[in-house]
Amino acid sequence: MKNTKPKFKQIIDAAVEVIAENGYHSSQVSKIAKKAGVADGTIYLYFKNKEDILVSLFQDKMGQFIARIETEIAEKNNAEDKLLELIRLHFSQLGANVPLAIVTQLELRQSNQELRHKINEVLKRYLKVIDSIIDEGIQEGVFHSELNTRLVRQMIFGTLDETVTNWVMKEQKYNLADQAAEVHQLLINGLSKQ
Amino acid sequence: MKNTKPKFKQIIDAAVEVIAENGYHSSQVSKIAKKAGVADGTIYLYFKNKEDILVSLFQDKMGQFIARIETEIAEKNNAEDKLLELIRLHFSQLGANVPLAIVTQLELRQSNQELRHKINEVLKRYLKVIDSIIDEGIQEGVFHSELNTRLVRQMIFGTLDETVTNWVMKEQKYNLADQAAEVHQLLINGLSKQ
Ligand SMILES: CCCCCCCCCCCCCCCCCC(=O)SCCNC(=O)CCNC(=O)[C@H](O)C(C)(C)COP(=O)(O)OP(=O)(O)OC[C@H]1O[C@@H](n2cnc3c(N)ncnc32)[C@H](O)[C@@H]1OP(=O)(O)O
Ligand SMILES: CCCCCCCCCCCCCCCCCC(=O)SCCNC(=O)CCNC(=O)[C@H](O)C(C)(C)COP(=O)(O)OP(=O)(O)OC[C@H]1O[C@@H](n2cnc3c(N)ncnc32)[C@H](O)[C@@H]1OP(=O)(O)O
Repeated sequence: MKNTKPKFKQIIDAAVEVIAENGYHSSQVSKIAKKAGVADGTIYLYFKNKEDILVSLFQDKMGQFIARIETEIAEKNNAEDKLLELIRLHFSQLGANVPLAIVTQLELRQSNQELRHKINEVLKRYLKVIDSIIDEGIQEGVFHSELNTRLVRQMIFGTLDETVTNWVMKEQKYNLADQAAEVHQLLINGLSKQ
Repeated sequence: MKNTKPKFKQIIDAAVEVIAENGYHSSQVSKIAKKAGVADGTIYLYFKNKEDILVSLFQDKMGQFIARIETEIAEKNNAEDKLLELIRLHFSQLGANVPLAIVTQLELRQSNQELRHKINEVLKRYLKVIDSIIDEGIQEGVFHSELNTRLVRQMIFGTLDETVTNWVMKEQKYNLADQAAEVHQLLINGLSKQ
């Protein structure tokens, strides 16, 4: 497996830094190689091209994140607590790694259709975790039973995603992880008092 | 005023079509001129460069949209109904204009910092309309009084935005405007039954 070799990780971590600093379009493979401390040719032993580096880094980081989230939510007893844990992890992981947050919030939003579809296939794994929490809440009888899972998922992911993008665009002036409980309350209770 | 001249509109409408079809980076000014049926030089009487075309088109369309929304919500008696009207207009305007939706959801998401800040200054006008509805709901005693307006705005805009992006990415297979009432219910009542 290519992704268990130490140089794979080294290149991916360098790519996050270089892409966050220069933007995806100005991040030549040679810049990434230099940052990783490997020869240009070495990159091509692991990746087909720059696009493959972008998709692979998202795949790799998302894989780790999902493994972590699945372990943590398995310990929670109900859908509401699982959702809070998911929000906490989403905010704390990105809040602790500004270059990664710049990459996820700005650089992974490519309009090129083919690349975008590859990126969204990776995202799908995360959306399925969100779906599983929604389904559990409905089964527990705690969430409204007539909920449309797709729209709920779009509300949850859309809210988290917009909160993170604002924090990135506002140059991380405030603490992202601190927003988790309030965002959770909003999603659970909505705007209305009654 | 440059933007009352007929050629200004003509160029902007051509730009929406060309950018939606080719992507912003592959939309040369000459392509836009050709589509608009004007000489390349004419474009530079109205716009400094391609970036200025992108920002100006967003400004122009957003200006029209906000004027419309302000008229419509002024006729509604309470914050809940105003929010529903805003969601309806957001979905129906983009739902009726696929090239414009591709531009707002994919092409306006530029990672270049300077350009992004210009785009977000335009977006701010819309976010202020959302803020005014939230404030009204709190004053009416209908929305929770301890709400953090910024997070609520991020939830509302984030939810609408993600719903539209999904519809764009799913190649407009379903009707976007039909989602308005359900999305409104979700935002007003949240996930929880109690
Ligand atoms: C690096 C990692 C870091 C780790 C640390 C931690 C943090 C984690 C956070 C990471 C954040 C990452 C963000 C980076 C994302 C970059 C991409 C974006 O821009 S994201 C921001 C922008 N967002 C995006 O770009 C996401 C866009 N979404 C998508 O592209 C897709 O939803 C999908 C590919 C994700 C799943 O697709 P699919 O597998 O197809 O599953 P669906 O269920 O969607 O659809 C199933 C069927 O239902 C139909 N249907 C859906 N809704 C409705 C409806 N309301 N009414 C009626 N019908 C509806 C639909 O047409 C389909 O029909 P058919 O085709 O079967 O006939
Ligand atoms: C073509 C039109 C079509 C017409 C048809 C219809 C449809 C309409 C729909 C159009 C959709 C258009 C989408 C196109 C958008 C493209 C751009 C995106 O990617 S959008 C998707 C991605 N989203 C984005 O890119 C939006 C990113 N957001 C932004 O860039 C900014 O919010 C802003 C520039 C919009 C406003 O900024 P500003 O005027 O500063 O006002 P703020 O209130 O934000 O901040 C005030 C202060 O509060 C601080 N603070 C905030 N939150 C918190 C917190 N939770 N805790 C503590 N503090 C917080 C903050 O640091 C600031 O402090 P300081 O600086 O005063 O010390």
